[in-house]
Amino acid sequence: MPATLTTQSEVDVLIIGAGPAGLMTANALANARVNVRIIDKRAAQVTAGQADGISPRTIEVFQSYGIGERLLREGCQVHLAAFYNPGPNGGIIRTGRAPDVTAPTARYPFELALHQAGIESIFLDSMKNLGVEVERSTVPTKIELSSDEALLNDPQSYPVRVTLDHLETTEGPTTEVVKAKYVLGADGAHSWVRRAFDISMDGEQSDFIWGVLDMVPDTDFPDIRNKALIHSNNGSCLLVPREEDRIRIYMQLSDKQVLNPETGRVDKDRMGPPQLLEVAQKSLHPFKLEPLNEINWWTLYIIGQRVASKYSINNRVFIAGDACHTHSPKAGQGMNASMNDAHNLAWKLAFVLRGWSGMELLSTYESERRKYAQDLIAFDKQFSTMFSGKPKTEQDLDGVSHEEFMGAFQTFGGFTSGIGVHYSPSVAVKNTHQALASKLVIGERVPPQVFVRAADAWPFELQDLLPSDFKFKLLVFTGDHNVPAQQARVRAFAEGLEKPGSFYTRYAPPGTGGKGAVVQNRFEVITIWDGKKEEVNYLDIPAVLRPHWTNVLIDDVDCTGKMGGNGYDYFGISPDGAVVVVRPDGYVGTIAPLYAIDGIEGYFAAFMQASA
Amino acid sequence: MPATLTTQSEVDVLIIGAGPAGLMTANALANARVNVRIIDKRAAQVTAGQADGISPRTIEVFQSYGIGERLLREGCQVHLAAFYNPGPNGGIIRTGRAPDVTAPTARYPFELALHQAGIESIFLDSMKNLGVEVERSTVPTKIELSSDEALLNDPQSYPVRVTLDHLETTEGPTTEVVKAKYVLGADGAHSWVRRAFDISMDGEQSDFIWGVLDMVPDTDFPDIRNKALIHSNNGSCLLVPREEDRIRIYMQLSDKQVLNPETGRVDKDRMGPPQLLEVAQKSLHPFKLEPLNEINWWTLYIIGQRVASKYSINNRVFIAGDACHTHSPKAGQGMNASMNDAHNLAWKLAFVLRGWSGMELLSTYESERRKYAQDLIAFDKQFSTMFSGKPKTEQDLDGVSHEEFMGAFQTFGGFTSGIGVHYSPSVAVKNTHQALASKLVIGERVPPQVFVRAADAWPFELQDLLPSDFKFKLLVFTGDHNVPAQQARVRAFAEGLEKPGSFYTRYAPPGTGGKGAVVQNRFEVITIWDGKKEEVNYLDIPAVLRPHWTNVLIDDVDCTGKMGGNGYDYFGISPDGAVVVVRPDGYVGTIAPLYAIDGIEGYFAAFMQASA
Repeated sequence: MPATLTTQSEVDVLIIGAGPAGLMTANALANARVNVRIIDKRAAQVTAGQADGISPRTIEVFQSYGIGERLLREGCQVHLAAFYNPGPNGGIIRTGRAPDVTAPTARYPFELALHQAGIESIFLDSMKNLGVEVERSTVPTKIELSSDEALLNDPQSYPVRVTLDHLETTEGPTTEVVKAKYVLGADGAHSWVRRAFDISMDGEQSDFIWGVLDMVPDTDFPDIRNKALIHSNNGSCLLVPREEDRIRIYMQLSDKQVLNPETGRVDKDRMGPPQLLEVAQKSLHPFKLEPLNEINWWTLYIIGQRVASKYSINNRVFIAGDACHTHSPKAGQGMNASMNDAHNLAWKLAFVLRGWSGMELLSTYESERRKYAQDLIAFDKQFSTMFSGKPKTEQDLDGVSHEEFMGAFQTFGGFTSGIGVHYSPSVAVKNTHQALASKLVIGERVPPQVFVRAADAWPFELQDLLPSDFKFKLLVFTGDHNVPAQQARVRAFAEGLEKPGSFYTRYAPPGTGGKGAVVQNRFEVITIWDGKKEEVNYLDIPAVLRPHWTNVLIDDVDCTGKMGGNGYDYFGISPDGAVVVVRPDGYVGTIAPLYAIDGIEGYFAAFMQASA
Repeated sequence: MPATLTTQSEVDVLIIGAGPAGLMTANALANARVNVRIIDKRAAQVTAGQADGISPRTIEVFQSYGIGERLLREGCQVHLAAFYNPGPNGGIIRTGRAPDVTAPTARYPFELALHQAGIESIFLDSMKNLGVEVERSTVPTKIELSSDEALLNDPQSYPVRVTLDHLETTEGPTTEVVKAKYVLGADGAHSWVRRAFDISMDGEQSDFIWGVLDMVPDTDFPDIRNKALIHSNNGSCLLVPREEDRIRIYMQLSDKQVLNPETGRVDKDRMGPPQLLEVAQKSLHPFKLEPLNEINWWTLYIIGQRVASKYSINNRVFIAGDACHTHSPKAGQGMNASMNDAHNLAWKLAFVLRGWSGMELLSTYESERRKYAQDLIAFDKQFSTMFSGKPKTEQDLDGVSHEEFMGAFQTFGGFTSGIGVHYSPSVAVKNTHQALASKLVIGERVPPQVFVRAADAWPFELQDLLPSDFKFKLLVFTGDHNVPAQQARVRAFAEGLEKPGSFYTRYAPPGTGGKGAVVQNRFEVITIWDGKKEEVNYLDIPAVLRPHWTNVLIDDVDCTGKMGGNGYDYFGISPDGAVVVVRPDGYVGTIAPLYAIDGIEGYFAAFMQASA
């Protein structure tokens, strides 16, 4: 033990690593007012390069935390993808352009490019407003998880001990022993937390080598501001436009190009900016490509396609992001997968820490996100093989044709956009009554749709009414109010909610008697009515279904006729109505008919608990 | 002269009054980096009440200064108007609901309500970032304009002397004599500046008395969150929803209700909150209306319908806002008219102060805005008379029917939205070649339309590419590039622009030789091409028409097919193309064919001058 001051402390959640996964978690938990700390060994924020594009689903998630506007203001949008293949004269020619995002329900139908420092700053500023800052120059040196069952089973105990070295304090280096309820290792591909618990990485043994260049180009290439997938006889490369007139070029390299034959290690003298530029230039021939000024950033990296064998130890120590999954940069998924791991975990931690849920909810983090990572790797392999494979030519009929490649690009659209993510049944996903809202797929995120507020005809995007505020939303589709049988169903549901002992009253925190107060806590009722703005009277809805006048929507176009309308059709809502339970992360948890509140009852009973 | 310290100073523009008109001007001039000061006699910002709604056009203008997002975030949107009339049982019944904004080209098809302090804060924060703050507790006591012709004719001279008393400095009250190039009186309905120059107010002699109440209501009135125009046998009133669940009620009152019969003056004991509430309650019968808590704000005011006989003295001292025009609050136009006065004046002042234009440009402020104010008063009279008139009933066939009133409401939509404002020919509006772009009406603002960027298929709202950045925009509609004759026209126009002595090169500030630099100053070229995103190569456009790759748009739908497209049709663009000159305030200045650059030449020659 070093001769330094050692302090002790307690914290609910300790996050190790302040990259995108760690910051996303910290920001989410800060929003939930969870007692959280986040440390990073680096002395300062990354300032250039790194990170991939931001997918349409990730933009939706940012928006749900109230930080989407800034992301959209600062990022560079990528709408179109251009495909190049070998032409008759040796150089490349364009074989087509197609939308870069092919997911039809994407609210933001584009990818965004923003440098990692830009993304991190959005989180840092948001967290700072909530009183949480990254503790830098702080290195974890030891982590222990108690094996005491009683401790492990008590969600409020502190079974994890982490020793931290603070390298740059005013008193010189200090050591701190932190007792934590939960720890998250968001410490990257070489995760210290993962290794400390000997979690293996499953998958391919072999690694691929990638080169990356950022520059402002001087070029006559007509797709320099689109995503360009270039399949040439001189190697494949991927061009992605970035902020401030920059572009990024990804090139897959061979061992021969990069490794020193004597040492077997990456040799930066063999492959630096001039050599990377030459690789790109050869691939782009006959188009010109030169940096207008200097190369802004470059890197080489070696990466395999692997997934961690588990995502948690006893639901006390978790890993997220690159610590769990590594893959190629081609589909631009790395950072998105990481931030969505965090988004999935954060509300579950908050619920358990608030005493609202048992620890079984935490198990769904691994089941939901590890499955996704496995799918991601499978996708990555297929896509990478196609992309790196030889182009099909008259001489080489075994190569990949443009049509095959375009087909794959579009097929995988739901995947690369993040929109198609589907969580399987678990305590948090109960697959019943799907037919009552056939297009609100249980286990998938709620697609965007504009509804109009009943009281004032103000159009709202439904996703904006489902913020990441750590509440379950009950979307009560009441159907057509003019049908008397339907009015009776709605009344029955409203009475069911209000009944003493219903889930809605039972999970009320003690001491918050009033109905309004209950509603503010775990649930938010949003009533969506099949009515016309010229006719409806929002006061006709039973009071429990309109905790505030703003909570009643109608399925109608707005006053211009240009927004909204046909939401019942679009969501496949039964004329009998439906209650759709949306999880705090925006995914459909279950669906129930208006007449059978028991279905919802059972869903919540599987993991929710009344406060102590 | 008081025995206080007297200082002397010089400023380019001195603004007297920090209400909406003054702040809009100060913020605009701060954006233009004009040397500006703004004073106000009040010690602090207004904190509650006051101000009317914000019209669709005003929102567009805010957006053009980069402050629209915050306005939209903070304001309460009003989409629907409900009309109530006397029912068979004595109380009111709803006769219909209709869109509150009927201007079909409105980009923001709603009115916004935001308290005056909220609006002012948007300006104050924006100005502060640009280094300009309001000097409060500062009272002007004397203003003199030189009669020396030579001084008056030199746009850079200081012919105005204003004496200011600073009431609250650390050294006690001080006096300052400010020499200003230009002075703006934005000092309200009782304008000191206007009276100092004996500018008369033309119009009706008689005044109307209005009562206003702000509250959070407890009510069963189903249109409490819509704008409600209530025409009852117990008086008319207007309800407008506001932020934070509040509403505002406007009631027109009679002399008998308000004036003390002995003094003939307003008697606040006769008409305070309880009496106002009673007036509203009678009008709303049989619906319940009570304040949920206290009355948030109330006022009585007396106002006539009048327009100032002139808006400037020698184009050196100007008045704007309520100083120029007073009218009823019914159509919610007061603040909008004021801020649009400011928007009209600011760029003209900036151009003259930069030496880019002669003072003749300043004369268009009065010609454009006074005409508008006269139209506003005419509208207000017609609308007010209808609104305050007796409802038509079986007993009283002379009254105003619901249909007549609804008709008037919709007819005036272009007017109340601010969208229909049309400036007549002047040195800044040249009415030629309208047919080449038939729907881009010369003298009106450019309507919103989404175009897609040629290089990257990113959809942009054209209005966002026409910011209030004190540049003239040249919208070059190049037509169909596949037509050879059209290519020739485009080349000819490009060559015309580049020719030495063309307006585009002639008005280059000295010492900024490079073409790029010229473009950055007074003009911005935006090329809009009739092409498809799958096919176009933005490099095919002559270089002078794409000063940056972002300046080339195409008339196509975006990648989702949901935004953009048909812009040529929507704007009525001739297949031969057109050049549309947009003024820095977003209004169409003139139109010319591609082949005749002389038209544009002549337009600018009428007021523009080469820098000294």
